[in-house]
Amino acid sequence: MSLIKIIEVLAILIGAFSGFAEARSKKMDVVGVFTVAFITAFGGGTLRDILLDKRPLFWVTHQEYAILIFVLSLIAVPAVRMARKIVSERVIVFADALGLGLFSIAGVSEALAAGMPIFIASMMGVITGVFGGILRDIVCNEIPMVLRDGRPYAICSFAGCWMYLLMQKSGVPPDFSLWSSALAICGLRLVTWAKGVRLE
Amino acid sequence: MSLIKIIEVLAILIGAFSGFAEARSKKMDVVGVFTVAFITAFGGGTLRDILLDKRPLFWVTHQEYAILIFVLSLIAVPAVRMARKIVSERVIVFADALGLGLFSIAGVSEALAAGMPIFIASMMGVITGVFGGILRDIVCNEIPMVLRDGRPYAICSFAGCWMYLLMQKSGVPPDFSLWSSALAICGLRLVTWAKGVRLE
Amino acid sequence: MSLIKIIEVLAILIGAFSGFAEARSKKMDVVGVFTVAFITAFGGGTLRDILLDKRPLFWVTHQEYAILIFVLSLIAVPAVRMARKIVSERVIVFADALGLGLFSIAGVSEALAAGMPIFIASMMGVITGVFGGILRDIVCNEIPMVLRDGRPYAICSFAGCWMYLLMQKSGVPPDFSLWSSALAICGLRLVTWAKGVRLE
Repeated sequence: MSLIKIIEVLAILIGAFSGFAEARSKKMDVVGVFTVAFITAFGGGTLRDILLDKRPLFWVTHQEYAILIFVLSLIAVPAVRMARKIVSERVIVFADALGLGLFSIAGVSEALAAGMPIFIASMMGVITGVFGGILRDIVCNEIPMVLRDGRPYAICSFAGCWMYLLMQKSGVPPDFSLWSSALAICGLRLVTWAKGVRLE
Repeated sequence: MSLIKIIEVLAILIGAFSGFAEARSKKMDVVGVFTVAFITAFGGGTLRDILLDKRPLFWVTHQEYAILIFVLSLIAVPAVRMARKIVSERVIVFADALGLGLFSIAGVSEALAAGMPIFIASMMGVITGVFGGILRDIVCNEIPMVLRDGRPYAICSFAGCWMYLLMQKSGVPPDFSLWSSALAICGLRLVTWAKGVRLE
Repeated sequence: MSLIKIIEVLAILIGAFSGFAEARSKKMDVVGVFTVAFITAFGGGTLRDILLDKRPLFWVTHQEYAILIFVLSLIAVPAVRMARKIVSERVIVFADALGLGLFSIAGVSEALAAGMPIFIASMMGVITGVFGGILRDIVCNEIPMVLRDGRPYAICSFAGCWMYLLMQKSGVPPDFSLWSSALAICGLRLVTWAKGVRLE
């Protein structure tokens, strides 16, 4: 399995896991747990593809991810409890930051390939990275965390998307700009999180 | 009027009626009543068609249903009150279960015809059957009932969709698999409801 | 700059401004302020284009509007405070009514051009005019104002859309029917607002 595939699966699992936790904290049943996990993992990319009118959707061509989340939902209650014992908060934040970086850069590069103007492409990157969590919070009847907690999250995604766009325009090799920008988002998120940086 | 047409109209009316009741309980005005009823009746099928990129939408080619809900909205307040006196809860649950079965199987068969892989097709069936109610609850600022009340509802739809898919793969005549699966969903919902079955 | 261009920019700014105010009242950070403002300004038109399957979206081909809202978001806190001192409530209601008229008629005429049946076209006009505000309220975790406050708002849009449709069917010159209907919506909103008219 290639490195990008491993990170992809990890990012989806992290998204699903945050959905499991949120759904359980709202006392949802197994249907709610699956729905919220699915929306968290795939909501951002799906919204981007609907806006770009791109089909088939990622999870349609990769139904194995949908099946994986389905199976995990059936064991989510003990899984979430166990995962919290085994996995420390640091690991979750790290994996989530990695997912944010990967999803964002995947989003901006797809939007660029679809001929979007540059600012819109950067927005599509951020949407891919953060809208799964926004939709999760809407379904769970909360004001979306990412819109109000003042921690740099969408901002990190936005900065990294522009780094990618500028590198692309400057003729940097695609592979290098993709990986370095994704890592930059991840690093920026981790540093601002560790330092407790807050926005207005 | 054919039997399927009658059930279709009935399913839409039931969806709209549950929207009327929910909107009035939130003290919405006539605009809210129409909007919520419309979203409840057509939300699931519309989301499926957007995900499949299928156009025109059902309610666009059948504007008579939109007009019907519009007219009903104007008389919804007395109608809901009267309907509750005439119609017992059993009749509502029965009609709703029939609608769940019909919408779900219509959704899964459309998704299969659009070339979706089998697990995704079953998800599209469930989305068609239950997402109208989820969107209704989001607009009404509630955690969606179907995700948290622990009564088998989406589960019944899911089981029936798989029954349909397996019959289709086994070469059972389409008409028979369609009707028997829709009735199975309806029956499963009614039996689990009557017995008070609850999920984790 | 042509008159229609001025009104268009004004309508978008008004939408964004109402998003700024709502986001700040929910104590959102700068990411929330931008997101909510963007959704309020473009949500109605985007939903219409998704339903009609029309691409590219308005804000994709006019990225200058997205950039404008982005820049405004950075200065939104002092801007909202200042704007409230300089601009009286009357001016805001007037501009908002103008935006409602323009967006609604743009929506109904686009739907007609896309071959929608007449009642659906009128619904698309109303969706374009009012759904930005509905999505804003959903993201902000409120029951949408336009669905419950009983003030004629969507109703004014609906009436004006039918005025436009009837004029189009009667062979009135397109330019005249467009402008007179948009002004009718604006006028209807202002008169009912000034008189304190309420619906059931």
